[in-house]
Amino acid sequence: MVWLKMPPRYTSSLRQTLPFLFLCFQILSLLIFMFLISSDYSYDQKYLQRYPEFQDINVMIILGFGFLFAFLKRFGFSAVGFSILLVAFGLQWAIILNAFLFGHKDGLRVISFTSLCTGLMSVLPALISFGAVLGKMNPVQLLMMTAFEMPVFTLNRYIMTKYLTIGDHISMMHAHIFGAYFGLSVSWLNSSPSQSTKANKEKENFETTSELFSMFGALFMWMFWPSYNSVLLQDLVQKSNAIYNTYFALAVSVVTVFSVSALVNQEGKLQMSHVRNGMLAGGVAVGYSAFMVQYPWITMTIGFLAGLTSSLSRTFFQRTLNKVSLVHDTCGVHYIFGLPGLLGGITYSLLIISADYNSIEILGYQAIVGIGCILLTLALSLVSGLITGFILKCKLFRPPSEHHFFQDQPFWEATLTR
Amino acid sequence: MVWLKMPPRYTSSLRQTLPFLFLCFQILSLLIFMFLISSDYSYDQKYLQRYPEFQDINVMIILGFGFLFAFLKRFGFSAVGFSILLVAFGLQWAIILNAFLFGHKDGLRVISFTSLCTGLMSVLPALISFGAVLGKMNPVQLLMMTAFEMPVFTLNRYIMTKYLTIGDHISMMHAHIFGAYFGLSVSWLNSSPSQSTKANKEKENFETTSELFSMFGALFMWMFWPSYNSVLLQDLVQKSNAIYNTYFALAVSVVTVFSVSALVNQEGKLQMSHVRNGMLAGGVAVGYSAFMVQYPWITMTIGFLAGLTSSLSRTFFQRTLNKVSLVHDTCGVHYIFGLPGLLGGITYSLLIISADYNSIEILGYQAIVGIGCILLTLALSLVSGLITGFILKCKLFRPPSEHHFFQDQPFWEATLTR
Amino acid sequence: MVWLKMPPRYTSSLRQTLPFLFLCFQILSLLIFMFLISSDYSYDQKYLQRYPEFQDINVMIILGFGFLFAFLKRFGFSAVGFSILLVAFGLQWAIILNAFLFGHKDGLRVISFTSLCTGLMSVLPALISFGAVLGKMNPVQLLMMTAFEMPVFTLNRYIMTKYLTIGDHISMMHAHIFGAYFGLSVSWLNSSPSQSTKANKEKENFETTSELFSMFGALFMWMFWPSYNSVLLQDLVQKSNAIYNTYFALAVSVVTVFSVSALVNQEGKLQMSHVRNGMLAGGVAVGYSAFMVQYPWITMTIGFLAGLTSSLSRTFFQRTLNKVSLVHDTCGVHYIFGLPGLLGGITYSLLIISADYNSIEILGYQAIVGIGCILLTLALSLVSGLITGFILKCKLFRPPSEHHFFQDQPFWEATLTR
Repeated sequence: MVWLKMPPRYTSSLRQTLPFLFLCFQILSLLIFMFLISSDYSYDQKYLQRYPEFQDINVMIILGFGFLFAFLKRFGFSAVGFSILLVAFGLQWAIILNAFLFGHKDGLRVISFTSLCTGLMSVLPALISFGAVLGKMNPVQLLMMTAFEMPVFTLNRYIMTKYLTIGDHISMMHAHIFGAYFGLSVSWLNSSPSQSTKANKEKENFETTSELFSMFGALFMWMFWPSYNSVLLQDLVQKSNAIYNTYFALAVSVVTVFSVSALVNQEGKLQMSHVRNGMLAGGVAVGYSAFMVQYPWITMTIGFLAGLTSSLSRTFFQRTLNKVSLVHDTCGVHYIFGLPGLLGGITYSLLIISADYNSIEILGYQAIVGIGCILLTLALSLVSGLITGFILKCKLFRPPSEHHFFQDQPFWEATLTR
Repeated sequence: MVWLKMPPRYTSSLRQTLPFLFLCFQILSLLIFMFLISSDYSYDQKYLQRYPEFQDINVMIILGFGFLFAFLKRFGFSAVGFSILLVAFGLQWAIILNAFLFGHKDGLRVISFTSLCTGLMSVLPALISFGAVLGKMNPVQLLMMTAFEMPVFTLNRYIMTKYLTIGDHISMMHAHIFGAYFGLSVSWLNSSPSQSTKANKEKENFETTSELFSMFGALFMWMFWPSYNSVLLQDLVQKSNAIYNTYFALAVSVVTVFSVSALVNQEGKLQMSHVRNGMLAGGVAVGYSAFMVQYPWITMTIGFLAGLTSSLSRTFFQRTLNKVSLVHDTCGVHYIFGLPGLLGGITYSLLIISADYNSIEILGYQAIVGIGCILLTLALSLVSGLITGFILKCKLFRPPSEHHFFQDQPFWEATLTR
Repeated sequence: MVWLKMPPRYTSSLRQTLPFLFLCFQILSLLIFMFLISSDYSYDQKYLQRYPEFQDINVMIILGFGFLFAFLKRFGFSAVGFSILLVAFGLQWAIILNAFLFGHKDGLRVISFTSLCTGLMSVLPALISFGAVLGKMNPVQLLMMTAFEMPVFTLNRYIMTKYLTIGDHISMMHAHIFGAYFGLSVSWLNSSPSQSTKANKEKENFETTSELFSMFGALFMWMFWPSYNSVLLQDLVQKSNAIYNTYFALAVSVVTVFSVSALVNQEGKLQMSHVRNGMLAGGVAVGYSAFMVQYPWITMTIGFLAGLTSSLSRTFFQRTLNKVSLVHDTCGVHYIFGLPGLLGGITYSLLIISADYNSIEILGYQAIVGIGCILLTLALSLVSGLITGFILKCKLFRPPSEHHFFQDQPFWEATLTR
């Protein structure tokens, strides 16, 4: 238990930055709401009907991500605590940004109930990026990262909906790709090569309880993914299709991932981290096309491919990638969200082309737009991620030193009973 | 930690069977969906209204069962992991079976949104049976067990709805009885007498954390049981009655079980396993009649009797039954689902008879049909369970040897930090 | 592990009281339902529409409180187990009381689906009081406490709705204040000064797992608080406003609490207990006024103040208060529910006054009534709490001796593996 008894001078105290930064952010947000935002309190029946789905997404984002990230045995408090912090801050920030970019009405920036839902969903990329840098940043850095990531993601959505005439729903589905590659870029600049030392490897180990908490978070995400893939759709037919198709894709990716996990292990044993992460890949990949597919076998195939991609890439590339490019991806968001997201985006374009409609020209155009959106998202996320990562290296933010990685101890008061 | 260091040759590696079997199953299911099933994607408004209840059942079945079974301190990964596996596979299999038996429409086998809900609910018996053989079978055996159990359960429902003119809802309520007795039969043939050795007894012990996880699963089941008992009902009056009555029965069985648990203990102490299991008995027992009872005190009495039955039978018979008949019932599904299910079925028939309608003849007939359904379910589940149990003993499936019972270690890759 | 091996004569066995008391209560309740209560089984469409919110509150009350209280490392079984027990008993008792006071219709005491929801919400004060005496009472005392508290709370609501013409919703929002001060009064008489001995301090410590379980409960409460603050509202506009405003207040109080928690710690570290408790304060405080506020910045300010109040008062006053007044408040319900509740009540009155309506006289009257309701609730809760606390000290109930505080061991059968 040496790590608990280190003298406090080795830990970079956040007392001089954290409280004031957080308070400033909060008061700033309050002032913006007070002076620059109008709220539309007229009754919105559609919203109330959507309230159960909104709660599903709430559970998925807060409990799901918080506990999914709790697999590091000494980083549980931070995983859960910082997730709710990022959601609480990011939600306000996202609502403000959406009001400024999308909410113009009669010369005012208007928010309404729908803004709450959009805001909550916009927090997703920040949480995915948190997964990539998990255990390697302090809460001040995380808050700054969220503060930088949100405007770029909202801008990305603005460009897509405004100039590429993509719907609200599809633009939001790029959150997975955006969050994953933004997080990987930040992580690239903030995890030094020597970081995979033996001591840190040990701390990255899990224990049964933390793995069960993590599985518990993953199950919540798995269960409520159909709500996530359908809540923004206005058309009720599309909505129920999205629920139906997503469920099939999720089920298939579970079975696939179990199979691959046993196959790639020398003794034929399953790995909890494979199962936990791979089973979500189906939901990510099918997000783009779930609303329009008319045959369950197509979504099942997407789920199958997503499960394969996620678990095979994780097995064969994670170690190589970590070593070669020095990108350390703690939670493996590249394999949960990044690659399945790309797969989903490409499949979406292919499905549009293969649809046997008459107007093949329009479809071809749509398919190209689909690919364009992915490239735009990749470019914006990588560039803004690199810039953010560069800024966050600044000593001002007191980044935790390497031997404090993957630990709650620098951030949380703890009794020493354990 | 001797059990962690056993040489791998003692563990029956699943690498040669598990991945290929799972892949085969998944590809087969995909092909069936591709070539033999039509999907009705027309809009089904009723389904979308039922979506919150569907999600409740989703939570109940996936999180509820997964964590309810996580009480064995060294079997947590398997309990949670294999539950989601069985659901993901069983759901597809059940949808296929239901399409073949119930889904005929214009010469095609059609599935729709309702099939998703029915499919999910049909997985219940497989999970209950999993509870009876918990820790004594490998995932390949569990998958085969599910593959064998589903067709018989669907056939059982087909006979009941087609020839005994029982409604969809009531036919589904036999899942508890079917699952429990099927599981007990399988367990009878697959747990050898010497299995209750000291070493296994030790492994069957729990610890605080695993018990809390298990309680957590049980609470989810408790809370969402009203949704389970009402989701298939079409009539909105019956539906709200079912919710209302189920809630009362559940509340009463909690208080009853606490009382009995303290009464049967020498020092007046409560037992977590009593409370956890007994509190669900009320929901199981009232499932049959919740939609039609017109006085809360009747449902409360059913809940009271179910709580008594469950906790008293568990206390007095479990050990005796284990010794005499050599049936080892790890989770006690006989006391959670089996006996309360029988109680509920019998009460249902009695309530039909006692209803003061004019047409006493029809009611008498219905009551006889009710008893007939129970007997049919018992017969089919016991016989098919015995056959399945016999097949699963086959060396081909590499059943785990006795000293690997109740352990994650043969199936899951684990770091040795704990 | 000395505490596990104490001879049973030191533990006050509950075998002679607990089972019989619980059974009596249950049978009494059954008889009251049988002979004195009529049930309105006619179809209530509004109820079914509200079913998802009802389930949210169910989760919040059962899982939320149960696991929120599971932070004591040796009291997890009791926290979760006694919560569900209090809910299961309290619900029946509350429905009976509500039927007698509010349910008169055609000379009968009628209950309907709405009664289930009101009953469930009426259990809240009992659970809050449980938080104040957590670990210091046996289940018999807890049941008696609930039995005494419910009638006074229902009477309080009756006086408010009948004579002070306050709506159902606002009257229910006083549950926080009532529960907190009732619990503090009971705790004052039942926790002796010497109780903060070193041994008990040690037992009050937490460990990572129990804290995560507790955070998990708190997150469920956080997520579903908008449902709690809106479910009783009939007007759909008010309802959606309440959801919207509550969410903002909750988000702001999270960021505020993180900030204060780091500020008050010498090393700038966060404290899980601060975060866990403070983040709920926003929801409590905004409960009164969420339905009528028309600007999000007002609710955000309330959330900000509630977060400040909760975490600052906890930091500076808890130890002092414990020492001076000898009130030991295990879970800190005073800071989660008591003070934020008072803040919310006062803000509500201020907001009514500041509303720029024409009829300023009526508004002034309403504001005075608002203050009057708070004073009434305070008076009733303190007086009835003192009386209840005095009764519960009686030897008849075999209160646990001091060295058994904060332990599952006197109440739960446990294997000694840990």
